[in-house]
Amino acid sequence: MSKQGSLRLVAGMVGGGQGADIGKTHRYAMRLDDRYDLHAGVFGRDGASSARIAESLGVPADRTYRDYREMAERESAREDGVDVVAVTTPNDSHFDIARTFLEAGISVVCEKPLTPDSASAAELVAIAESSGAILAVPHCYSAYPMVRHAARMVRDGDLGRIRFAAVEHASGWAAAPVELGEHRQARWRTDPGVAGFPSVVGDLGTHAFHLLRYITGLEATRVSAELDTLVPGRRVFDNATVRLTLSNGTPATLWASMAATGNEHGLRIRVFGDTASIEWRHEDPQHLTVRDLDGGTTILAQGMRTLSEDAGRLTRPGLGHPEGFLEAFANFYRDLADELRARRDDTPTTVRDLSFPTGRDGLIGVQFVEATAASHAADSAWVVPAFAHDKVGI
Amino acid sequence: MSKQGSLRLVAGMVGGGQGADIGKTHRYAMRLDDRYDLHAGVFGRDGASSARIAESLGVPADRTYRDYREMAERESAREDGVDVVAVTTPNDSHFDIARTFLEAGISVVCEKPLTPDSASAAELVAIAESSGAILAVPHCYSAYPMVRHAARMVRDGDLGRIRFAAVEHASGWAAAPVELGEHRQARWRTDPGVAGFPSVVGDLGTHAFHLLRYITGLEATRVSAELDTLVPGRRVFDNATVRLTLSNGTPATLWASMAATGNEHGLRIRVFGDTASIEWRHEDPQHLTVRDLDGGTTILAQGMRTLSEDAGRLTRPGLGHPEGFLEAFANFYRDLADELRARRDDTPTTVRDLSFPTGRDGLIGVQFVEATAASHAADSAWVVPAFAHDKVGI
Amino acid sequence: MSKQGSLRLVAGMVGGGQGADIGKTHRYAMRLDDRYDLHAGVFGRDGASSARIAESLGVPADRTYRDYREMAERESAREDGVDVVAVTTPNDSHFDIARTFLEAGISVVCEKPLTPDSASAAELVAIAESSGAILAVPHCYSAYPMVRHAARMVRDGDLGRIRFAAVEHASGWAAAPVELGEHRQARWRTDPGVAGFPSVVGDLGTHAFHLLRYITGLEATRVSAELDTLVPGRRVFDNATVRLTLSNGTPATLWASMAATGNEHGLRIRVFGDTASIEWRHEDPQHLTVRDLDGGTTILAQGMRTLSEDAGRLTRPGLGHPEGFLEAFANFYRDLADELRARRDDTPTTVRDLSFPTGRDGLIGVQFVEATAASHAADSAWVVPAFAHDKVGI
Amino acid sequence: MSKQGSLRLVAGMVGGGQGADIGKTHRYAMRLDDRYDLHAGVFGRDGASSARIAESLGVPADRTYRDYREMAERESAREDGVDVVAVTTPNDSHFDIARTFLEAGISVVCEKPLTPDSASAAELVAIAESSGAILAVPHCYSAYPMVRHAARMVRDGDLGRIRFAAVEHASGWAAAPVELGEHRQARWRTDPGVAGFPSVVGDLGTHAFHLLRYITGLEATRVSAELDTLVPGRRVFDNATVRLTLSNGTPATLWASMAATGNEHGLRIRVFGDTASIEWRHEDPQHLTVRDLDGGTTILAQGMRTLSEDAGRLTRPGLGHPEGFLEAFANFYRDLADELRARRDDTPTTVRDLSFPTGRDGLIGVQFVEATAASHAADSAWVVPAFAHDKVGI
Repeated sequence: MSKQGSLRLVAGMVGGGQGADIGKTHRYAMRLDDRYDLHAGVFGRDGASSARIAESLGVPADRTYRDYREMAERESAREDGVDVVAVTTPNDSHFDIARTFLEAGISVVCEKPLTPDSASAAELVAIAESSGAILAVPHCYSAYPMVRHAARMVRDGDLGRIRFAAVEHASGWAAAPVELGEHRQARWRTDPGVAGFPSVVGDLGTHAFHLLRYITGLEATRVSAELDTLVPGRRVFDNATVRLTLSNGTPATLWASMAATGNEHGLRIRVFGDTASIEWRHEDPQHLTVRDLDGGTTILAQGMRTLSEDAGRLTRPGLGHPEGFLEAFANFYRDLADELRARRDDTPTTVRDLSFPTGRDGLIGVQFVEATAASHAADSAWVVPAFAHDKVGI
Repeated sequence: MSKQGSLRLVAGMVGGGQGADIGKTHRYAMRLDDRYDLHAGVFGRDGASSARIAESLGVPADRTYRDYREMAERESAREDGVDVVAVTTPNDSHFDIARTFLEAGISVVCEKPLTPDSASAAELVAIAESSGAILAVPHCYSAYPMVRHAARMVRDGDLGRIRFAAVEHASGWAAAPVELGEHRQARWRTDPGVAGFPSVVGDLGTHAFHLLRYITGLEATRVSAELDTLVPGRRVFDNATVRLTLSNGTPATLWASMAATGNEHGLRIRVFGDTASIEWRHEDPQHLTVRDLDGGTTILAQGMRTLSEDAGRLTRPGLGHPEGFLEAFANFYRDLADELRARRDDTPTTVRDLSFPTGRDGLIGVQFVEATAASHAADSAWVVPAFAHDKVGI
Repeated sequence: MSKQGSLRLVAGMVGGGQGADIGKTHRYAMRLDDRYDLHAGVFGRDGASSARIAESLGVPADRTYRDYREMAERESAREDGVDVVAVTTPNDSHFDIARTFLEAGISVVCEKPLTPDSASAAELVAIAESSGAILAVPHCYSAYPMVRHAARMVRDGDLGRIRFAAVEHASGWAAAPVELGEHRQARWRTDPGVAGFPSVVGDLGTHAFHLLRYITGLEATRVSAELDTLVPGRRVFDNATVRLTLSNGTPATLWASMAATGNEHGLRIRVFGDTASIEWRHEDPQHLTVRDLDGGTTILAQGMRTLSEDAGRLTRPGLGHPEGFLEAFANFYRDLADELRARRDDTPTTVRDLSFPTGRDGLIGVQFVEATAASHAADSAWVVPAFAHDKVGI
Repeated sequence: MSKQGSLRLVAGMVGGGQGADIGKTHRYAMRLDDRYDLHAGVFGRDGASSARIAESLGVPADRTYRDYREMAERESAREDGVDVVAVTTPNDSHFDIARTFLEAGISVVCEKPLTPDSASAAELVAIAESSGAILAVPHCYSAYPMVRHAARMVRDGDLGRIRFAAVEHASGWAAAPVELGEHRQARWRTDPGVAGFPSVVGDLGTHAFHLLRYITGLEATRVSAELDTLVPGRRVFDNATVRLTLSNGTPATLWASMAATGNEHGLRIRVFGDTASIEWRHEDPQHLTVRDLDGGTTILAQGMRTLSEDAGRLTRPGLGHPEGFLEAFANFYRDLADELRARRDDTPTTVRDLSFPTGRDGLIGVQFVEATAASHAADSAWVVPAFAHDKVGI
């Protein structure tokens, strides 16, 4: 193929139309490191508006499609067709769109939650595996350099044996009943039908859960959850407290909320080992706090020359130059680009132990959501998630 | 009596001998505001050592006793006998000592946990109530000015309706197996027989629980607890995660630990209302963080003229002059002094809605510990604590 | 012209070859908001290496030039020639390159310090003004949303009358004699010949000075400076303490250093008015701290809906999603793009009172450097900078 | 004497009457460690009010005096007379009172500034030295454990060679014209006649200067100062920026202000060596921040077992238990008590290299104030302070 050997990948997008913040974020992330050319897409259901957006993005008119099926068909027939498609539509449409592209052999970046139930999520994973395409899920928080470094420290035993962990994704974004106003995103994220799940666990909770798995390297063997609706009248559970047992018997807690009044993004993780502990907060992603048995605190900063290669390779301007959310998202896309190129060009895989989240991670997230719902229904009894039974259920 | 009208109170102490940090702390706290004269005591089981300590403290030899029974008998017979006795012995001796003084009509400050079971704690409360003596429990964290201000803000509706709360007392003090070495306090605090309870809930957990009750003004109606032993070989549960439902249906979480590697004292509370939230951390007790629905953060500082009278009256040098643990402990003793004097002099009570913790609070703490143990035994099932059944069980 | 009306601008670059971090940063910044196509350049003095870089950047071979003169000549002759050129070469070459493009009517983004002396800087400014091209200087720190908001607050009188200001750009990047090793940037930044100035004032100091002017809206009327060499053997003054009087008589201090051991980037500004003060730190650029006369502290966060339009329009993903250095740099390029387009398309200017720094700001910076050198030579006596005499000297 | 060998010292006070915060602070500080009995005093010029205060403090009526001369005469005649007197009156009266007691052989704790001119301060120092009494000046900030540890680190070479220092005592307490209202302390602190000095250097500035000398162990060899009046109409200079050269040639800056709007106490010091730097802030006195050449930050906490003995011996409850201003002040009194006892009992001196500030420190402070005034009068020219000429001028 003509693309062979090129440094750049051809990207498409489904969703990301007017007012769709997450689509814009994907585009920022693709652009930053200059590894993707956005050359095709469906930017909303309204053809005219989609065309306008396409034009502003430099997407040729003949590769701006009416719907994703047409796009999959035509792009897969082109020599210079898209290598990967970002699916940034509301949750209830993920499955059909992702399946269509995967079946056409086109890799997919699909927003979480992958699908509204684990059967369909498992189906996507299976299709991806058989098709040779990549299914990636942008739990982008694991692409922050200091999160990578934290995961590396755990793998290297710098904390000793892990004994406890506490993770929170408790945002204040919907602390008021914002869905009653003009807030479009609020409306679909609090509509159980569109959101795919009736709880914040399916939304912010899966990010927190992935971060916990990513840094500790441990899986959950059982969960107990309480789901609450803090904002009266809201149609989804907007607050969840989860107790977990991890694979080495470690207890852990997870708190997910969209109604934590006054919090910014509220993502924070603490992991305690028997010789040291670490803390990372999304409000200050440049730093990683390490505490030792004596009570001493060390703050590591992105860009220090002494950090692991995992953190270093994801750092752009260096020490003292804050990078943030878009850079983390771009890191996800950069790691993905390396692997997409490897597959395209038939060179060795680039995937390492600390890499981008895939469909399997997305499926585990969906199974986690289901387990918390089951526990809640049983008055917060312990529930064993599907992935603990049968190795991710596929 | 000759003491009538005096500004000072006569104090005694049982415990607080060599190496007993908590006894020293009580003495610092009594001294700071100059309302107590320590004139009697039993400073350890070893008479010679007790006498030495008494002398260094200016306690007359004839009021340095061999045991607390003798002390109670002789002091209650004196016109200038002690008004109040601080009981700072290991937990397993609290009951007998406190009972003896209370029955003699002498007020008692008794360290938490009050007793190893709620029946005996309730007995102490009943004795105090019938004797007219005060039984006070030094949950001194509620005496920090900014905690008082937080409680006042909640009472005044500044946060709107309370919807969630998270409290932690997760210290790293015993993250290593310190009890195996020369650490005296570590030995008894991890000995279930002496500590009175087989879990950290009976220790730091009751402080966290009291702080939660104090600031929110809400009681727990049910609890679910998981108790863990993070340090292998330890004889007590050194980590506890508790889920609570508060009296207005509010969900809450509590984490108590003595094995949170690297943490200093680790006491922290966050309370979320529907219009604002607050956060207070023991590592920076001078400040109270308030967050609003827009994401704005306001930091209130001890000594600001615009704070409530509850905070203002407990502030000594003022804005920009940090006060800490000893000052908070002294605040507890100062509020207590006011009430002891009122009772002694038969003037109107000084107790207000935000005052010092009493035996009832101590009893509720013991019942909380029992409820967490029961929940743990039932695989973390929900348990209704005794105080929720029957109004503090007495 | 064929470019007329296009959303995108055609950009070129001189410099930014192998190992040139600042060139990479300019490219990140151009890319993020998708308003520039990098279509021409000279990426180093070595033709082969320049061609390699050009290819990796997607710059066509026929627009990859051997030197900037050829580039200026050929690009200005093309209908689709570059609208703007980023000059990211070492300081001693700025003047010739910038002059060449400006004289060809091509706008220039020139790194600070503009030139090694104010006469040549003034010449560039004059050429730009007569040619109709824009000369912009990337003091990108003024493009952080919270810096913009700070400047807006000052303009709106939210701090009352300004009475004192303290600014620091005290980095630790060259606290060790890094120029003795393989650190390329360290070598030229500590070589007075290449750096253009024999002091850190010409380097970090001009950023601090611009930030001070930008936020306060005040100019300096006199300066007193002490220059020191903290790292023995270094060929430039690596530390400077400057005392300033601002145009309303306000005293101010400025500290610039490249040898502040342990500091990250160390850029921080505090401005005190008679009713409130503000503080902004580059280590946490997302927030702006405001303090009032009562001692209360309010922390404003990027993305809050209540911020000024100046901050809001520069914010991408919103509250709780950190943005950093690259985003600020991209903000500079975005504001510049708006004005470049307005000039290209002959539409009304977009420049507002809080916009991107121009050649005049660069010239004022050079005059500031000269004034500090003169003061230092006179044992730190007060010196009136040229710009205070004669309105920027041109 | 009967007092020989007693653990306690007999203390007196002049000043500290109604509304006199600093007198109260001295009493808190004396009480905390139980080494002083306040047995004599003059608590204000109004006899009745003085008697009332004496009574509330438990000072016997027959040792409550009408004036300090009577007190000095009668106390020095008693076998159980005062060992030390705290002078907490307004600045203009310090000299006469301190001289009277020192001449009577009674040690004195005298608030800063010692006297309004260096001649009289030198006289006090000389009297103290010839009389064998101690003259101590409560620059209590040097008694914070983490300040002691900082000084120890510098002495031990942990920072390498000191290369720069920046100290600030920039408070917001008088950012508004508080002296126009009912604020008693504000009235005398802004009255040049009573304050002793017409600038904030004589007030907060001497604390900052002492802290700089204490931690670095270096003396100033020249100073350049600018004094400003930020609050219109104020009778003293309320803001000072000082540039210093220290004894090893190290440049340093000092900023003192009482008009730093919104600041709490605003005391903060940063010291940069060639291998590490340290930072201490009064807003968080429990911690000391250490930064290394790589950009790593370590936070040391009061109570860590690995700290120096200098810090450890001044720590009361330990790690995680904040101590503050009163404890630091009490540390000053504790160190003083050790030395007072040693002199009283004729045992070896307890004074070590990091101990309490004496009259010499007070004198150096006064000379510093004078040097800054002289520099200001000479348009901020460099001035060599008297202590740099002639070893403290006595």
